[in-house]
Amino acid sequence: MRNVAIVGAGMTAFGEHFDLGIKDLIPMAYAECVANVDKGISKSEVQAVWFGELTTTDGSPAAILADTLDLTGIPVTRVENACATGNDAIRNGVLAIASGAYDVVLVVGADKVRETATNATFWEWAGLTRDTAWDYPLGLVAPANFALHVTRYLHESPATKEHMAMVAVKNHFHALNNPKAQLRFEITVEQALVAPIIADPFGLYDCTPQSDGAAAVILAAEDVVDRYTDSPVWVRGVGLGMDRVMHQHKSDMTTFPPTVRAAKAAMSMAGLTPRDVDVAEVHDCFTGVELISYEDLGFASRFEAYKLVEGREHYVGGSIPINPSGGLKAKGHPPGATGVAQCYELFNQLRGEAENQVDGARVGLAHNIGGPTAVSAVTILSSDKS
Amino acid sequence: MRNVAIVGAGMTAFGEHFDLGIKDLIPMAYAECVANVDKGISKSEVQAVWFGELTTTDGSPAAILADTLDLTGIPVTRVENACATGNDAIRNGVLAIASGAYDVVLVVGADKVRETATNATFWEWAGLTRDTAWDYPLGLVAPANFALHVTRYLHESPATKEHMAMVAVKNHFHALNNPKAQLRFEITVEQALVAPIIADPFGLYDCTPQSDGAAAVILAAEDVVDRYTDSPVWVRGVGLGMDRVMHQHKSDMTTFPPTVRAAKAAMSMAGLTPRDVDVAEVHDCFTGVELISYEDLGFASRFEAYKLVEGREHYVGGSIPINPSGGLKAKGHPPGATGVAQCYELFNQLRGEAENQVDGARVGLAHNIGGPTAVSAVTILSSDKS
Repeated sequence: MRNVAIVGAGMTAFGEHFDLGIKDLIPMAYAECVANVDKGISKSEVQAVWFGELTTTDGSPAAILADTLDLTGIPVTRVENACATGNDAIRNGVLAIASGAYDVVLVVGADKVRETATNATFWEWAGLTRDTAWDYPLGLVAPANFALHVTRYLHESPATKEHMAMVAVKNHFHALNNPKAQLRFEITVEQALVAPIIADPFGLYDCTPQSDGAAAVILAAEDVVDRYTDSPVWVRGVGLGMDRVMHQHKSDMTTFPPTVRAAKAAMSMAGLTPRDVDVAEVHDCFTGVELISYEDLGFASRFEAYKLVEGREHYVGGSIPINPSGGLKAKGHPPGATGVAQCYELFNQLRGEAENQVDGARVGLAHNIGGPTAVSAVTILSSDKS
Repeated sequence: MRNVAIVGAGMTAFGEHFDLGIKDLIPMAYAECVANVDKGISKSEVQAVWFGELTTTDGSPAAILADTLDLTGIPVTRVENACATGNDAIRNGVLAIASGAYDVVLVVGADKVRETATNATFWEWAGLTRDTAWDYPLGLVAPANFALHVTRYLHESPATKEHMAMVAVKNHFHALNNPKAQLRFEITVEQALVAPIIADPFGLYDCTPQSDGAAAVILAAEDVVDRYTDSPVWVRGVGLGMDRVMHQHKSDMTTFPPTVRAAKAAMSMAGLTPRDVDVAEVHDCFTGVELISYEDLGFASRFEAYKLVEGREHYVGGSIPINPSGGLKAKGHPPGATGVAQCYELFNQLRGEAENQVDGARVGLAHNIGGPTAVSAVTILSSDKS
């Protein structure tokens, strides 16, 4: 496969954008992305688009993106894969360039969660995203769904609710410096532990907020990268992993096989190991999911994620800084945008331009997990081409 | 780009499958697809899946496909692009193989239109697929949307409602021999002309039925095609074209620019011209759309589609047989499945195995148009590798 790099990235602030529609958020992310291409890029150089959109369900998303960005002359494909949508959209863009069909591809992720096309509430919408035969009768909307896993994880591992709280505290702390983050305030472990319960064992501060937002990256084939920047960020690996939908079919609730599969595929493609990763954006839709993911991604041994937390290794300055952006927990989580926004953060990290810069970061990993814990996408980026 | 071929194809009957869910329809199409691989294929040889699904919105479609087919060990991406979903899913599968990442890819298209996850009626669902700011206030669900175009087309071209009726008569006639078709009965021009009006100028027989169904194809890289068949059908070209969403922004209502763009891209990739096409499956969601598409695809000159109809050139046996399967009009139209099912028909045609066989067919074209006439996908297949 020919090599592919990110040559520009941008994102909107994540938040409750009641005053902005998805047709506003997409151009905002695109404009910043283009402005961040060092040597400039004209719209006519973009040859195809992959668009990650999950929840907005407002008309024909691909056509709306093409129209909104005045890109009706090129193909636009919508990719949807639950909360793994963003990184799967990037994966599809990378494969398309690797095929030789295109040299320059735009990947956009966007969602409006705080208002939906149907004017349904978020939870009405969330209920409808569940399989009607398998999940819906069990009430397995996202918090309940992930709570089943984390309850068992807390039972089998030495990790406690305090460790979960320490993840929330860390992500809120990181978000303080991120002007794009939705929740820019510090919290304490004590505050997290006494917060109202959302779905046991998750209190309010264990949960990502509901967010609107958009993010965009421009991918370029190695043959043309020099036209756009002297500091590209190479896409070294992409991986997508699946699992069974029904929880009664999952053989072990304390690990997410989709993450293991996606990470294995991406690492194999990159020729790298978890030890090579300097910084990661991990899908912390719930704090306990970040803990389990440390293990699934190979950053910690089985049931030892809590050790990273106790050693503060997951902070910027630690051995494996996780979510320097603030993560889904504090930066926010518009599902289609989330994975693309993770790659925006890593683009800045690997160019040494991030707000919470990880010194000397050369390899970054972005991770999503979604649906009924049934899909995960992992992207591995590096300042080194190989 | 390395060459890609279809080595197996299958589909369910299209119809009102009130007794079957999407979890039944997907395995049925997959089973027939696998059975049609001449030299056999084991599930473990499939390396990735692209899934086209538009309307069912039942949980996480990609995860449900992976679970239903017991393919949780490989990546599954859902592609959605309005009624162009099926052929865009094939396009994505082709690009993925061309990239070198995979040698064998499954593409499935499926939808349940007659029952939706929300238990909403079809038209409630159809309303929600419209952009809420741009289309919804205008009531532009599909028949109204396409009727605006065809009304103008009938005004500017010599074509009449009789020509539209003759398209319906032809597609019903072709469907008679197709055991998978939903509407297997002949109609007359007179019947069509006096049928109840759905959205002027479309009467009942100008409109596709609402359908449930699934279709599947297996794509293989040229390097491994011989393992599976000695009669592959090569994917010579894929194209995807977009347009503006709002009708007041369309400069000419008598042509569909997305089709022109998608066809140009696919023809260019294939190194072929419209004259090379021996048989085509054209997106006849409404009869007038089939007429306009003859011109957009290059089978007829501007405003001269009616001449093909009057000369019966669009029948099997004519110079450019269109929709030997019965088309959307009489075979049925489960949107996500439609494009994949078109390629199933062409797979059979180009191997000389179709029910309404076009003698000596070597090049076939599949065409979708969808959304607010804002997206089109075209796939060009051939029994010849180059």
